[in-house]
Amino acid sequence: MLATYLDSTNLKPDAGANEIRSLCEEAIRYQMAAVCIHPYRLKLAAALMKNSGVSLCTVIGFPLGANTTASKVFEAREALQTGADELDMVINIAAMKDGDAYLINEIKALMALKDQYDFILKVIVETALLTVEELKYLTKLLTNLKVDYIKTSTGFASRGVSLQDMQIISAHKGPDLKIKASGGIKTTDFAYKLIAAGANRLGTSNAAQLLAGSD
Amino acid sequence: MLATYLDSTNLKPDAGANEIRSLCEEAIRYQMAAVCIHPYRLKLAAALMKNSGVSLCTVIGFPLGANTTASKVFEAREALQTGADELDMVINIAAMKDGDAYLINEIKALMALKDQYDFILKVIVETALLTVEELKYLTKLLTNLKVDYIKTSTGFASRGVSLQDMQIISAHKGPDLKIKASGGIKTTDFAYKLIAAGANRLGTSNAAQLLAGSD
Repeated sequence: MLATYLDSTNLKPDAGANEIRSLCEEAIRYQMAAVCIHPYRLKLAAALMKNSGVSLCTVIGFPLGANTTASKVFEAREALQTGADELDMVINIAAMKDGDAYLINEIKALMALKDQYDFILKVIVETALLTVEELKYLTKLLTNLKVDYIKTSTGFASRGVSLQDMQIISAHKGPDLKIKASGGIKTTDFAYKLIAAGANRLGTSNAAQLLAGSD
Repeated sequence: MLATYLDSTNLKPDAGANEIRSLCEEAIRYQMAAVCIHPYRLKLAAALMKNSGVSLCTVIGFPLGANTTASKVFEAREALQTGADELDMVINIAAMKDGDAYLINEIKALMALKDQYDFILKVIVETALLTVEELKYLTKLLTNLKVDYIKTSTGFASRGVSLQDMQIISAHKGPDLKIKASGGIKTTDFAYKLIAAGANRLGTSNAAQLLAGSD
């Protein structure tokens, strides 16, 4: 059942309301895992997704991750209040490159929202911008911080997920950390390879296309 | 004096602290108009830019503009409190495509911060995603809303500013609306063509290179 792996995504900045409605209806029809949309679209989507069995996911600090922790927490809280079940948050990549504790404190600040809200936190590391050592470090860090998922990519960098990313993450993560592979997943063949490599979710802007090729 | 037109920009998500320091020092040395950096970097840059004669600029809702008005206002207020002199805010492009008043109310909400803070508001319209009619509409709208600048591009879309963009904006704007041309300005020749076409500022990640070619 490929559909149950899919976070069907539309993060185009110019996607009209009709495109978002279609995305939601399609995700419900195929009972995908989630729809993933911008915070501005949550209000529209929350009404459509209620009691659908499909989760409502949005993005925080997306796609560059370079705003402040206070901004990310504000955006996250507002999203949860508007009905988001899942948050895909981009790390502060620059802070990591500087070896700054800001990175860790920020993830902890997002996790602290779990005291008030029931949600899944996926942390986007943007593998395109990381060395192998940095990806290993982040995989271990996210395991220790007990976030729900490590997510590979925003889809807005020079590349999306690779099978090598999956191997590195799988080899260094703890058993409870799940993997959302994302970015450039355009064929059913690649989707199955990522699942075989350990992906628990696939973020894709081509969900229907993947399912059409999955028979 | 090309330098006085330049908003020297580093919005790479993985730019280290040293890169930001260099950007600031260089902008001060050449007395450029401003440095433009991510909100996370304001604290570092504010200390360096104080009393330098060069403005401190950051970006709001960048680069997709698809978060909520409340998030943008929060991010803007925090940036102003941290020392930003200028805010480059991305419009909600999807709301405009839907013909939604959300677009206008959002810009008004940012302008309302001028009651409390002294700053320049530049509104990024992302010309790559607009039809000619939409760019005309936005030029007139931003004139009427009395924002300081219309800014053409984020540098993260399929293209940056074009001379055609400049012609459309110049032909439809009021006398008080200034123009920041941005995105893909990599040669001194193009920089001067944009100034000749009416640009009051140039946003560029290649400021030193442009100045080197300007003799």
